[in-house]
Amino acid sequence: MSIRVTVWHEYRHEKTNPKVAEIYPKGMHEALATYLRTCRDIAVRTATLDEAEHGLGESVVNETDVMLWWGHIAHGEVKDEIVQRVHDRVLGGMGLIVLHSGHFSKIFKRLMGTTCNLKWREANDREILWVTRPGHPIVRDIDDHFILPQEEMYGEYFDIPDPMETVLISSFTGGEVFRSGVTYERGAGRIFYFRPGHETYPSYHDKNVLKVIENAVRWAAPTPQPAAHTFGNRPTGWVDKK
Amino acid sequence: MSIRVTVWHEYRHEKTNPKVAEIYPKGMHEALATYLRTCRDIAVRTATLDEAEHGLGESVVNETDVMLWWGHIAHGEVKDEIVQRVHDRVLGGMGLIVLHSGHFSKIFKRLMGTTCNLKWREANDREILWVTRPGHPIVRDIDDHFILPQEEMYGEYFDIPDPMETVLISSFTGGEVFRSGVTYERGAGRIFYFRPGHETYPSYHDKNVLKVIENAVRWAAPTPQPAAHTFGNRPTGWVDKK
Amino acid sequence: MSIRVTVWHEYRHEKTNPKVAEIYPKGMHEALATYLRTCRDIAVRTATLDEAEHGLGESVVNETDVMLWWGHIAHGEVKDEIVQRVHDRVLGGMGLIVLHSGHFSKIFKRLMGTTCNLKWREANDREILWVTRPGHPIVRDIDDHFILPQEEMYGEYFDIPDPMETVLISSFTGGEVFRSGVTYERGAGRIFYFRPGHETYPSYHDKNVLKVIENAVRWAAPTPQPAAHTFGNRPTGWVDKK
Amino acid sequence: MSIRVTVWHEYRHEKTNPKVAEIYPKGMHEALATYLRTCRDIAVRTATLDEAEHGLGESVVNETDVMLWWGHIAHGEVKDEIVQRVHDRVLGGMGLIVLHSGHFSKIFKRLMGTTCNLKWREANDREILWVTRPGHPIVRDIDDHFILPQEEMYGEYFDIPDPMETVLISSFTGGEVFRSGVTYERGAGRIFYFRPGHETYPSYHDKNVLKVIENAVRWAAPTPQPAAHTFGNRPTGWVDKK
Repeated sequence: MSIRVTVWHEYRHEKTNPKVAEIYPKGMHEALATYLRTCRDIAVRTATLDEAEHGLGESVVNETDVMLWWGHIAHGEVKDEIVQRVHDRVLGGMGLIVLHSGHFSKIFKRLMGTTCNLKWREANDREILWVTRPGHPIVRDIDDHFILPQEEMYGEYFDIPDPMETVLISSFTGGEVFRSGVTYERGAGRIFYFRPGHETYPSYHDKNVLKVIENAVRWAAPTPQPAAHTFGNRPTGWVDKK
Repeated sequence: MSIRVTVWHEYRHEKTNPKVAEIYPKGMHEALATYLRTCRDIAVRTATLDEAEHGLGESVVNETDVMLWWGHIAHGEVKDEIVQRVHDRVLGGMGLIVLHSGHFSKIFKRLMGTTCNLKWREANDREILWVTRPGHPIVRDIDDHFILPQEEMYGEYFDIPDPMETVLISSFTGGEVFRSGVTYERGAGRIFYFRPGHETYPSYHDKNVLKVIENAVRWAAPTPQPAAHTFGNRPTGWVDKK
Repeated sequence: MSIRVTVWHEYRHEKTNPKVAEIYPKGMHEALATYLRTCRDIAVRTATLDEAEHGLGESVVNETDVMLWWGHIAHGEVKDEIVQRVHDRVLGGMGLIVLHSGHFSKIFKRLMGTTCNLKWREANDREILWVTRPGHPIVRDIDDHFILPQEEMYGEYFDIPDPMETVLISSFTGGEVFRSGVTYERGAGRIFYFRPGHETYPSYHDKNVLKVIENAVRWAAPTPQPAAHTFGNRPTGWVDKK
Repeated sequence: MSIRVTVWHEYRHEKTNPKVAEIYPKGMHEALATYLRTCRDIAVRTATLDEAEHGLGESVVNETDVMLWWGHIAHGEVKDEIVQRVHDRVLGGMGLIVLHSGHFSKIFKRLMGTTCNLKWREANDREILWVTRPGHPIVRDIDDHFILPQEEMYGEYFDIPDPMETVLISSFTGGEVFRSGVTYERGAGRIFYFRPGHETYPSYHDKNVLKVIENAVRWAAPTPQPAAHTFGNRPTGWVDKK
């Protein structure tokens, strides 16, 4: 059975900035979706901010195994009820891959419990991403480092909880460092934050970036059975009666 | 310099339930505050839900090093703006000790990013608390286990992120288990969740429970200097100019 | 391609204790191997202490994806060079599932860096295993708890590093608790410690115990590609020349 | 009562390499000890490889609260029985601060359970150390980054378990990154690995490096009471009889 992926994208920069539109003529979400559609075990749909319910109606969310999330200038426009829906679904087992400026999205901040703030600079820094957990499924087929010739700089301190696993750490031309690939588990869901993807650079055409995202989709996919757990009032002796 | 503690308490059960009022004539917060006042290095004040701003005006919060939080039936009445204030202060370095039914408080759920749900039963279970990180400052002077003859049962699955440290795990008469003492770091703040303290049992008169809380206050207290970190846009070369 | 499992067993109790031989006529390893052979995606072999090189020659170890380890009375007889071989292979990516009294094996202690000591009692305690990370692949198809009517008690403090994930916690008739299912990553390898399996109880005939082990095999299996990483002296500029 | 620190040093480079002797005329251990002696709450002694029992007799080890460890070319000469003694003491509560090339020491590898291997280069790289856990006691009084104009490069992958806390991450001129300040708890002991300190650079004269080490000493110091825990056989009912 396929892993059902929903690529969620704010999809605003492409409509107003010709530079972005040139790199991603159909939007970043289509670049990501096009790549993932080449994977036989992955079934892809997309959803964007300006659709009804941001494209994230109940049936879409409930039928998603792994969601990708890219947002930047319109985090505040994402409705709280949709954030709640996605949050519930992550805790219920859906995987979530938060990309680049999605660090400031409502859903990521809610899952982390911190500000998720950081340093940044748009100055064509060279980014080198170093693998810090070789053998991890997320860096399958990735060498011990890879380079993006030009990217936005993100720098520490990145205000996140200490990750479960730190899979990638970046350096930039300016000397800054950043935890670029980090994993979390919240409820029954797995979360991966992945740094690259500023809208004015072609990072979602880079083969290493795409491979990491493909790998992360498989890593974050829930087990086929829903998580078995119960909450609430329990009478004495119930443990034996099951 | 003293550690400035604010004991925050919902303070409702004592006003309506004679059984609770008998155990805690001046409220749970006063039982906790009275004990902590015996510690020379700790300066204590209290704050309760029905005070203006829930007793948590800006100056109170800003001048608090460690906050204790007990709530149960009125989590929903705590104003979001006060929760935001406390949240900001935790990320800025204030320690937070969440007690018992405070697992469902707005502040704890926001910091954890999960539902914080659990199983429970009010049936006079015997609780045995086992130390799972001996040598930790929070269990200083605590034996390898201690017993509360009667307590409310809380049972796993407790929907929290995997803790930084699991310091105490409980068993109950009914056979359930629970991670009863767990630590987290969020931003510059330290958080300790501590399970005991149902309002109809005298747990906050128990010497081991009080000792754990006293220890946790010292563990959670911030370092004297505010955390040094900056966020935002940085020009190339700034790292050398400092 | 199948996951290549090697079930390693000390295989001594069965030869001298009729009670154990009655429960496991061909040895515990055969009970485990027989079950795992019913899984289409798993290829099983066994190895035991009294074979040459303990059954763990270089080719066996190199061709193993996941190793199970049960030992008890003869940990000291396991040769250091074989422990080294298994250790190297775990760091290189092999999964390792350490069972019950294997907590005191040389390989587990070496990987943990601690004494791995604990409390214990052979008195027919009832063990209840509680799931503390629902949705985790290791507890797929497992209810929120399961019961072993009679088992040896293991009690905290269990001297292990704080786990990456705590998947199962047990309670016992005597009121003790124990972290019964815990995960670690060391180098490129995944490690799962799983508590049940005292030789005088039929725990490796229990369907829940077997299911957890089956799940753990799949969780611990390495990614098909070997982990890409290099160590050692690097000239300036090498990062760009790759 | 003072924190009793023992600075352990291999003390070989200074005797054969004039460049090192010029930077550290009395040895690195004396540079570190001299600084720590300026702290009123710290009592310092030193111990070196070529002393009897490497200066680490039983009484010295038992009376040490926090040990610093620097070694490089003679790790293999450290006797296994002394390593065992230090290991036992760490698990019993002693703090351990492992410096620079001490990453390959027997004691650190034993505590980590991994190879602790890494990349390196001696080419006068500029090292920038970034704080990734502001507010942590170890980075008290440290700005959000500090710079060492010349240091040996250490690069990822650093083969260590995922740390409890990652407090500092470095970048180097060559573009490499490294987790430079990481914490662990093993048994009752706290461990801090701190990267800087190549023998041909004056890093242990740098005020930020020295401040981090001073802070780490206080962080790693054990609580005054020995950790309360017991192991071994327990009869049914013992939990109530204490």
